[in-house]
Amino acid sequence: MRNRVIIENVRPEIDGGQHFIKRVPGEKVQAVADIFGDGHDHIRASLYYRHEGEKRWTEVFMESELNDVWKAQFQAVKKGFYYYKLEGWVDHLLNWYEGFLKKQKAGQDMRVELKIGAHYLRETAKKHAKSKSAPLIESAVQLEKEDAYDEAVQLVLSEGFAQMVQESPMKQHETVYDKGLRVRVGWEKELYSTWYELFPRSASAQAGAHGTFADCERLLPRIHEMGFDVLYFPPIHPIGKLNRKGKDNKTEAAPGDPGSPWAIGSDEGGHKAINPALGTLEDYKRLLKKAKKEYGIDIAFDLAFQCAPDHPYIKEHPEWFLWRPDGTIAYAENPPKKYQDIVPINFETEDWKNLWEELRSVILFWCEAGVRIFRVDNPHTKPYRFWEWVIAEVQRDYPDTIFLAEAFTRPKVMAALAKAGFNQSYTYFTWRTDKREMEEYLTELTQTELREHFRPNFWPNTPDILAYELMNAGPNTFAKRLLLAATLSSSYGIYGPAYEFLENSPNTNGKEEYFNSEKYEIRYYDWGYRNRLTALITRLNHIRKEQPALQSTWNIQFTRTDNEQLMSYVKYTEDMENVVWCIASFDSEYRQSGFVEVPKQLLGIGRNVNLRVTDLLTGEVYHWFNEWNFVEIDPDKYPGHVLLVEKMQR
Amino acid sequence: MRNRVIIENVRPEIDGGQHFIKRVPGEKVQAVADIFGDGHDHIRASLYYRHEGEKRWTEVFMESELNDVWKAQFQAVKKGFYYYKLEGWVDHLLNWYEGFLKKQKAGQDMRVELKIGAHYLRETAKKHAKSKSAPLIESAVQLEKEDAYDEAVQLVLSEGFAQMVQESPMKQHETVYDKGLRVRVGWEKELYSTWYELFPRSASAQAGAHGTFADCERLLPRIHEMGFDVLYFPPIHPIGKLNRKGKDNKTEAAPGDPGSPWAIGSDEGGHKAINPALGTLEDYKRLLKKAKKEYGIDIAFDLAFQCAPDHPYIKEHPEWFLWRPDGTIAYAENPPKKYQDIVPINFETEDWKNLWEELRSVILFWCEAGVRIFRVDNPHTKPYRFWEWVIAEVQRDYPDTIFLAEAFTRPKVMAALAKAGFNQSYTYFTWRTDKREMEEYLTELTQTELREHFRPNFWPNTPDILAYELMNAGPNTFAKRLLLAATLSSSYGIYGPAYEFLENSPNTNGKEEYFNSEKYEIRYYDWGYRNRLTALITRLNHIRKEQPALQSTWNIQFTRTDNEQLMSYVKYTEDMENVVWCIASFDSEYRQSGFVEVPKQLLGIGRNVNLRVTDLLTGEVYHWFNEWNFVEIDPDKYPGHVLLVEKMQR
Repeated sequence: MRNRVIIENVRPEIDGGQHFIKRVPGEKVQAVADIFGDGHDHIRASLYYRHEGEKRWTEVFMESELNDVWKAQFQAVKKGFYYYKLEGWVDHLLNWYEGFLKKQKAGQDMRVELKIGAHYLRETAKKHAKSKSAPLIESAVQLEKEDAYDEAVQLVLSEGFAQMVQESPMKQHETVYDKGLRVRVGWEKELYSTWYELFPRSASAQAGAHGTFADCERLLPRIHEMGFDVLYFPPIHPIGKLNRKGKDNKTEAAPGDPGSPWAIGSDEGGHKAINPALGTLEDYKRLLKKAKKEYGIDIAFDLAFQCAPDHPYIKEHPEWFLWRPDGTIAYAENPPKKYQDIVPINFETEDWKNLWEELRSVILFWCEAGVRIFRVDNPHTKPYRFWEWVIAEVQRDYPDTIFLAEAFTRPKVMAALAKAGFNQSYTYFTWRTDKREMEEYLTELTQTELREHFRPNFWPNTPDILAYELMNAGPNTFAKRLLLAATLSSSYGIYGPAYEFLENSPNTNGKEEYFNSEKYEIRYYDWGYRNRLTALITRLNHIRKEQPALQSTWNIQFTRTDNEQLMSYVKYTEDMENVVWCIASFDSEYRQSGFVEVPKQLLGIGRNVNLRVTDLLTGEVYHWFNEWNFVEIDPDKYPGHVLLVEKMQR
Repeated sequence: MRNRVIIENVRPEIDGGQHFIKRVPGEKVQAVADIFGDGHDHIRASLYYRHEGEKRWTEVFMESELNDVWKAQFQAVKKGFYYYKLEGWVDHLLNWYEGFLKKQKAGQDMRVELKIGAHYLRETAKKHAKSKSAPLIESAVQLEKEDAYDEAVQLVLSEGFAQMVQESPMKQHETVYDKGLRVRVGWEKELYSTWYELFPRSASAQAGAHGTFADCERLLPRIHEMGFDVLYFPPIHPIGKLNRKGKDNKTEAAPGDPGSPWAIGSDEGGHKAINPALGTLEDYKRLLKKAKKEYGIDIAFDLAFQCAPDHPYIKEHPEWFLWRPDGTIAYAENPPKKYQDIVPINFETEDWKNLWEELRSVILFWCEAGVRIFRVDNPHTKPYRFWEWVIAEVQRDYPDTIFLAEAFTRPKVMAALAKAGFNQSYTYFTWRTDKREMEEYLTELTQTELREHFRPNFWPNTPDILAYELMNAGPNTFAKRLLLAATLSSSYGIYGPAYEFLENSPNTNGKEEYFNSEKYEIRYYDWGYRNRLTALITRLNHIRKEQPALQSTWNIQFTRTDNEQLMSYVKYTEDMENVVWCIASFDSEYRQSGFVEVPKQLLGIGRNVNLRVTDLLTGEVYHWFNEWNFVEIDPDKYPGHVLLVEKMQR
């Protein structure tokens, strides 16, 4: 009952501390809270943090801002979990000290004040270890010397004394705010990764042939040369034969139709098996090893917890599925539509414990094979609690794993999946097509609570989505969406060959789907071909590697332009050693020009501007001396400028 | 682990349920939350509430809005505490029903669906009492009749069936959100009260005489006639003789100077004693009784937990005070200023338990004498926890008591006091002088979390504050501030005689203080005098009594004007039976005219306007047929319009 300080409105804190926040090594955690006491006494506050492997807390004094807002930060260095908490207290030593300064200035006699100060110094000394208590006691002795009044006053007024009062606080009636708040510090690729998606069955160099893992191996140098570090395959399991879909999602498959890789399982095996047409488990492991070792590429695995009607689970565990009164199994459906080639797992089964354990064993099986990145299909159709549990279980044994949530659904559901532990998430980027909505979306992602737990991965296209903007669009539009994805978000990806080779033909059903979708057939690509887009992809990915400012999503700042078609945004490392300024045009047809504003951080004394800017796409160099500078973007050449900015001395 | 629904971002919820929210009987509590499940299943949610005196919860089905936001409300009827909680669940009966409608519409055969429906109906019946389960089972029987397919389908499509599905939900995997959230339902005067402050020692009809409680009794008809229902006196205790302040806050009192009533205690007694110059405890009790019984007026008591240097506590409980090394007591100070006539209580004393109990006994002593309203002096200089404890203790025995927090300090401190249990609070109204800041402040008070626990009481002046705007100001300014206070907030008050008799002379120290403040001397007022302001006060207070729309603070809506000097706001009862529309002018010197916008709620079909408006100050009647209407305000007559609005039939 005796604590006198209130600590509230603590951030970051997700749902009262129910969920952890996320960082990678080197990122900071800034804690903010409303902290105040009663009355006029001076209060102070500290942030404490410790790594789960440490016993001792490290203390950081918080600093106060206007209206009782206090702040402090610490850097996440080691992987694993950090805990953090706050503490506030009334500081009578500081009270006395501040009062002393005012009274002395007002010419009051300070004899009694010196005695009071000596008392507080001694009381404070009791609370500190020897290194800190010694100077406190020494000062108390000085203050008590009756024959050295002037010296004592001068001592209190000295800089060293101020510093001692600051660094050796007198804590009383402390309020501790400890809700077990946690930060998970994960693998660096959680924040910065560059994805290329392809169907391995389309990887063959030979038209008409079923691609294999061996074919994928041959593609690694190409993927690496383009600058990708994640290569993602749709499911690699045996594909259901019962109710298999034909070309273009037809209900009946023709002989030889390969079916959708997401209709998992047949008499050839289920979620721990590999489609024999792609190769063997050994082939897959060899590919993973080679990709990682020789090219730094992780092969991402598609985790789709659903079954074809002939998946072995259905016979082995009929209790994991829903059965209808006529004895048939309940297919996936979105009434009145039915998906006869897919049977959902019933997570409400009474046997849920065994089900959860089996699914965990599936993930661990592939971890053991070398997989470290899982793209999770439709996670929002499974319980949040299941993901929370299974991701924690897997990451306990394999801390450097990434789970990417493939959910394009309502905002709160997407946030809930991130809170449950997903390390990256697909986003609405795909449908943000003008400057205003793009700026709003990036602000929401980077300036709200989402910033603490939701890591966006920007995809201009996926095998499921040919966005309206890309339908029948020319290469300039593809270039524009690529530039935005690659520079706005530190993680982005493309459904590669379709993007690179400018697939733009929509399905005839009016939906945002590809014509004759690769989901239901094998494609032949001329992997030797390289076009303007291949070159731009390559250039952008290498710029991302060279410029650390582009390896974070949180450091974005928009600046003004006088042309609504031009979007201007700056990204910088915290030390400002690396600054990249992007100016993108939303017009893919015509040239757009206008003036763009220099961000405040780049202004010198007296708002002086002296910048050397190098266009990293063209190599051109400019010198800018004004707060507003002219740019012109010709979409037939480049969709925008990616400028390396150097602040010059006068 | 098996609940599938997430409930988060629940409002109202103060600091995770640590503090209760506040209502008076008849007010509603609207609960809002983000509620969603995984996947595509239909979910539903309920709000539950119960009065502390009841065992059974009452259930209200919540309704969903855009983006997973759910809402429901209940009305606080009885005084005391209500508890409320939320519940969300997956509703498979509803799932099936919605799917049935779509499939039937698409022309599918429904035979199997009918069987599934019968199963769900029977399962649902198991969870309900007989009155609800009987029709469910009856419907199941109908759906299972193989020879009545068409009738069964028609039954499902019937309106009665839809209603049954709605009212007899099938709850599974429920998530319950129960944090012990509470609403305190208190005395009606907590929300609607009208205060007049005077120093009883200035109540005498005879110049130079020390006023008494008997003099106050004579003033009751006058106060009542003006429409006030709270009469507030500064402290009525013996005033310290040691270090007593003289006229105009002089350090030395002249013989006969009465001292500040806030310097409490002398050899004549402390916080349970009465200044003999005012009368006896019996006189005080008689005044209280008469005021309440004959005039409906509560006498508010000033609770100032501080002592004069000769207060009996200082000898009886020296451990409750701070002593300096030279053996002197520590006076109140705000370095370098010292307040020698006041000694603060040291709430950090080791003997705090006895201190707290003594202070509680002080409050209970005055409750027993008949006091029901406490204006608490400087509550922010005492621990929040103390107030939380003592207010709860007192209100357990005396539920109909009001504590008004006299704190003009930082926003978070003021909010913390309200959270600790204060029923009303002084505000920044005193310093909000233009339209923009007034609208912003009212929006903050009524549209943010403050609305749930912080009840404003608007004071244009107090004995401590002659606001800059009122310094040397004429009657028009006094009239303007009065109109704003009386119509913006359902509780307001004035330091009465100074306001009514237009005291406008500031102290010469440049601060917002009165010249020759009544805090340090006895005044003589001609209580028989009535001026233009007396008349306006009287009229406004009676309008407040007659128009229930003005008896709430939360029902305000601003509408646009085309003149920045005119502020337009409408208040209405929930049933729209009473609508009052105020248009205030911020210009006290010149006439202002302009157009004001009719609020949306008063528009008819096709934005048709047909309003009869009666100016309650002048009695003039207008008919308005347009969305924007012309008004003109002459500050020499009235500071604004207070319009009773009646919506007419065509």
